[in-house]
Amino acid sequence: MAKYAVGVDLGGTNLRIAAVDDGGKMLSKITLETDVRRGREFVVEELVRSVVQMRDKFREAELYGIGVGVPGLIDSETGRLVESPNLPGWSDYDVKGDIERRLGTTVILENDANAAAIGEHWLGAGRGWDSMCMYTLGTGVGGGLILGGKLWRGWNGMAAELGHCNVEPAGHPCNCGSWGCLEQYASATAVVRLAREKIAAGATGLSKVASEELNSRAVYECAMSGDAAAKSVFEHVGRALGLAIASMVNAMNIPVHVIGGGVSSAWDAFAPALFDELRKRSYIYANTTAEDGSGRGGRKRPTLITRATLGGDGGLYGAARLPMVESKIP
Amino acid sequence: MAKYAVGVDLGGTNLRIAAVDDGGKMLSKITLETDVRRGREFVVEELVRSVVQMRDKFREAELYGIGVGVPGLIDSETGRLVESPNLPGWSDYDVKGDIERRLGTTVILENDANAAAIGEHWLGAGRGWDSMCMYTLGTGVGGGLILGGKLWRGWNGMAAELGHCNVEPAGHPCNCGSWGCLEQYASATAVVRLAREKIAAGATGLSKVASEELNSRAVYECAMSGDAAAKSVFEHVGRALGLAIASMVNAMNIPVHVIGGGVSSAWDAFAPALFDELRKRSYIYANTTAEDGSGRGGRKRPTLITRATLGGDGGLYGAARLPMVESKIP
Repeated sequence: MAKYAVGVDLGGTNLRIAAVDDGGKMLSKITLETDVRRGREFVVEELVRSVVQMRDKFREAELYGIGVGVPGLIDSETGRLVESPNLPGWSDYDVKGDIERRLGTTVILENDANAAAIGEHWLGAGRGWDSMCMYTLGTGVGGGLILGGKLWRGWNGMAAELGHCNVEPAGHPCNCGSWGCLEQYASATAVVRLAREKIAAGATGLSKVASEELNSRAVYECAMSGDAAAKSVFEHVGRALGLAIASMVNAMNIPVHVIGGGVSSAWDAFAPALFDELRKRSYIYANTTAEDGSGRGGRKRPTLITRATLGGDGGLYGAARLPMVESKIP
Repeated sequence: MAKYAVGVDLGGTNLRIAAVDDGGKMLSKITLETDVRRGREFVVEELVRSVVQMRDKFREAELYGIGVGVPGLIDSETGRLVESPNLPGWSDYDVKGDIERRLGTTVILENDANAAAIGEHWLGAGRGWDSMCMYTLGTGVGGGLILGGKLWRGWNGMAAELGHCNVEPAGHPCNCGSWGCLEQYASATAVVRLAREKIAAGATGLSKVASEELNSRAVYECAMSGDAAAKSVFEHVGRALGLAIASMVNAMNIPVHVIGGGVSSAWDAFAPALFDELRKRSYIYANTTAEDGSGRGGRKRPTLITRATLGGDGGLYGAARLPMVESKIP
């Protein structure tokens, strides 16, 4: 049996633990419906119990280590969560230290979107590329950067907070203290808020949807059924994403931009506006990439904007990958 | 005598050629007042003649090579200038090939702001730092990124077009085809435009300045004399810069951001608004850096925002550095 690692993806609504071998095969997966609102102590105990369970199951095989992806800003100096809007009560908490004490071994802690970037780069849409930029459109919007084959963590380990690229200086207030961050226009939360704004302005189709349950998937289905207001919600999502990606293309000139997270399944509804905005906003993109995504004007190096291919498991694969990669570092 | 290189800084208004040794000492410098509007053929001929003159002067010493910084997008595949708003008539022109044919030797061509980043990283404000981000506020706004000690060129060699980070989605039209790029609010050209807008709205102090000569330095002096309209022009500059730097801090978490170019001499006038905006817009900056620039909340790694220290020579030093660094690459 191949050497394996345990990956943990701690999300705002569920907790998943997987054993993944170094060939990228998922050997076993535990998905817990546990609501993080039951509190830190409860969730950490569940997490630790599941990791131990996984280790017991594969005790005959060699373990690389344990990687944990968590939402929020992690301070690499201290291993603490500085801020985590989706894990209330976890701010300035020593997640890494606490898990390590309970497990009796070291773990590698990483931001969940960074883990998703590692996963997509290892096995998904970014496979084989030297550098890529990942955007995860979930409850919030996260980001991850792979530069020269490695995760770019930055000076404080806080890099790639792409959800907080500004797309509307006087826009909607953001949890981070700014206004008009990408997260306020391209997250599942934003889709619902934008839909509510349309309903308040008299959108009858969306109003019917809201009488059952208003979530980003329902807004998407409403858009695909031809509802103009729902379509314009996703046009807003696409324009915000296009503007943010344009700034990243202009700043970094990275070849591959991968869009994942729950909202990315609404690709058909937001992609046309995204590409339209990107062509207008980035002359690097416009000068190198034709409408069909091929090289433009004889250039061989177009910029690729594409969907994640690992679905919800990108972050889980990435978390498991962490100890495999880190263990090579002396 | 130490081994040396020839650096060329080809600007929109003048042309400078220098011999620099590998200890960073400028051995000789030629500054030509030549207006680039005299045409490509004339300028390239002057450039080549000055490089030959420099080589003759130091023919006893060993030459690393020749580095040339030019404004505009350079396609690394072809060595051509794709677009150069400040060099009219140079678009899609094989600068590198033409200079090489006339000189009879190879040259290294680089974007002028990238050259400035290399210069400031080698001998200026970025010295000793692993990674830095450079913003050059001149006729336009350029950028340069040093990541892990090396210039980050990106997929097409077009990275770090930081002047085209968006700061105002529905803002002033930009030469690049977009609207509201940083360049439209933080370049010398923008300072003059913003001042003209104030004059049209009845600003009498700036109106007096304009009766002599309206340039960014005159607007700065007017601001420092206490004129409210001129002060608000630089507040606009500072807010735009703060917003763009905040997005770069959030995306890249780079430790040092260096601001150079002519407009950077108005630092006193725009810096307060810059820092105010940056604190509001980047929770990474706000969480790691106190008002006095030291680490915040016990953290040891604040983010530094500072002025360039090489003045107008950063790009010239950087151009000369190119062949010293490149010659180490096999």
